[in-house]
Amino acid sequence: MAYSNTRVLLASRPQGLPQPENLTIETVEVPPLAPGQVLVKVELISLDPAMRGWMNEGKSYAPPIAIGEVFRALAAGQVVESQHPGFAVGDYVTGVLGAQQYMVRAGDAAQDPAYLRKVDTGLAPLETYLATLGMPGMTAYFGLLDTGQPQPANTVVVSGAAGTVGSVVGQIAKLKGCRVVGIAGDQAKVDYCVQELGFDACINYKTEDVAAALRAACPQGIDVYFDNVGGEILDTVLLQINLKGRIVICGAILQYNNTAPAKGPANYMMLLVNRARMEGILVGDNAVRFGDAAREMAGWLREGKLTTPKVQTEHGIENFLPTLNKLFSGENFGKLVLAP
Amino acid sequence: MAYSNTRVLLASRPQGLPQPENLTIETVEVPPLAPGQVLVKVELISLDPAMRGWMNEGKSYAPPIAIGEVFRALAAGQVVESQHPGFAVGDYVTGVLGAQQYMVRAGDAAQDPAYLRKVDTGLAPLETYLATLGMPGMTAYFGLLDTGQPQPANTVVVSGAAGTVGSVVGQIAKLKGCRVVGIAGDQAKVDYCVQELGFDACINYKTEDVAAALRAACPQGIDVYFDNVGGEILDTVLLQINLKGRIVICGAILQYNNTAPAKGPANYMMLLVNRARMEGILVGDNAVRFGDAAREMAGWLREGKLTTPKVQTEHGIENFLPTLNKLFSGENFGKLVLAP
Repeated sequence: MAYSNTRVLLASRPQGLPQPENLTIETVEVPPLAPGQVLVKVELISLDPAMRGWMNEGKSYAPPIAIGEVFRALAAGQVVESQHPGFAVGDYVTGVLGAQQYMVRAGDAAQDPAYLRKVDTGLAPLETYLATLGMPGMTAYFGLLDTGQPQPANTVVVSGAAGTVGSVVGQIAKLKGCRVVGIAGDQAKVDYCVQELGFDACINYKTEDVAAALRAACPQGIDVYFDNVGGEILDTVLLQINLKGRIVICGAILQYNNTAPAKGPANYMMLLVNRARMEGILVGDNAVRFGDAAREMAGWLREGKLTTPKVQTEHGIENFLPTLNKLFSGENFGKLVLAP
Repeated sequence: MAYSNTRVLLASRPQGLPQPENLTIETVEVPPLAPGQVLVKVELISLDPAMRGWMNEGKSYAPPIAIGEVFRALAAGQVVESQHPGFAVGDYVTGVLGAQQYMVRAGDAAQDPAYLRKVDTGLAPLETYLATLGMPGMTAYFGLLDTGQPQPANTVVVSGAAGTVGSVVGQIAKLKGCRVVGIAGDQAKVDYCVQELGFDACINYKTEDVAAALRAACPQGIDVYFDNVGGEILDTVLLQINLKGRIVICGAILQYNNTAPAKGPANYMMLLVNRARMEGILVGDNAVRFGDAAREMAGWLREGKLTTPKVQTEHGIENFLPTLNKLFSGENFGKLVLAP
């Protein structure tokens, strides 16, 4: 059977917010499978802030997407044809499937580092494997526990609090006996963090004086700050960081589309005053431990200690760009996915 | 016997570089000793960058010097009268003696947290106890070894390289088998680091393109950066930091007299790209381990593995302010002390 695959390619590198001319959308026919290969119908494309970085040239933790290449994307899908003994038609999988409707993949890690991982949709819905049990969940788990090192009764602040990473960070911190204060960009997200995720407080950075609100919400100061946003908020937190505090640099979404040079944290000398630490993390560094972490997180989900992630599903591969840009405008709420 | 004590008090808090009107110099008579007290003739006052911070109001790792208080200073001196059984006339001591000619001190830690420490001038000259075997040496030792964690064959970069801290950092890094690259502000300092301290290279940041010079001197990238200066140099190093690199924030002398808000390190997102760490240190946090560290450092000095520190001695308590300000103009070379 012939499959027609509509896909998104990177056409040029954006300055600031990505624009339509930076992408090409084209439809091609899927070639026949070679032995060892698998054809996956992409069901859900994950939209992640890191994608913006992949559009840039220059040194980063991952190579840039090449011009003319399919836009790199984590995704989940279902096997529709298989020439590989390890995969059967109907299996659900995740992997770096790209922003497209169909993906031909080799099924072996040895042949293909972005290999397919089979997932059990009986245990959790497919989108959970792009959220709590996927990269964002692993990012939260290792970033908070290994780098943030929260101790019972510590105060943990997390920005992007209602996001896929932030919501898991806050919930794990609660499980570890911490006081948890979120920072988010609208009232619905603030309410969600407090009422549904059980955060002790959450601050609306668009309507509140963040410095004053943090002082009120963190009377014992801030022991751990998990930063997804960068910019002014990081600077404000630095002024309230405790002795031996830990700042986990996970992202800086408020700066990703800057065309002006990024503003550094002017208050970084508070690291000296408080002998505090600021450390960058990358989820892939812990790949060998993903299995154990996912098992522990799946247990927490089953026991209701972690909520199932909020998901916002958009539709149509032609809507890839407006969907991606919702990450930067903050219009998304929960795990943002695109059904292509 | 009556002693006349000329001393420096803080009169007001400076904006930018300290000025004469920020200080009062006065002469008072030393009161008679009470039981348990010791009178110390101050021989050498240590000039340290941290003093600038103590002149400011506001939260820091040490309380500010109060207006009207004797200017806080580490110093070394000799006991000239004693009402304490643990100290005899003629003993050499170090402590927070202040910017003055005579200091009355209780001899017990229990009575006085800035208590006197007896030192052996047979083992090392008095000024060494204000340098390699004093706070700067301890800062270098613990900051480099505990926080910087240099591994053999790592590349270690240190700014303020010819200074009391930087010169010890670089020499210990060499002892640990690292490639060591200094950054300093004039050619004599550069030559001293390479020819006398055995650094592999040293960069003159006033005459060279620091980014290009670092790339040439650090072909394997930078694993550890020990930062004494802050500002642009920190930003430049961030662009060359290696995966899992460690940046030790010890000071930012190039920013201490800024009246404009400090500039943050705009390239701090390289911490994320490289999963690197930036951590502030304060020597006092390791006080319980000073004895062991000093014994190890004294051994290295005896064996010639550490050079005796270069010392620049100025004279006259009335020259306290111009001497202090040499730290910020970079006119000092080696450990700067004032014989009052």
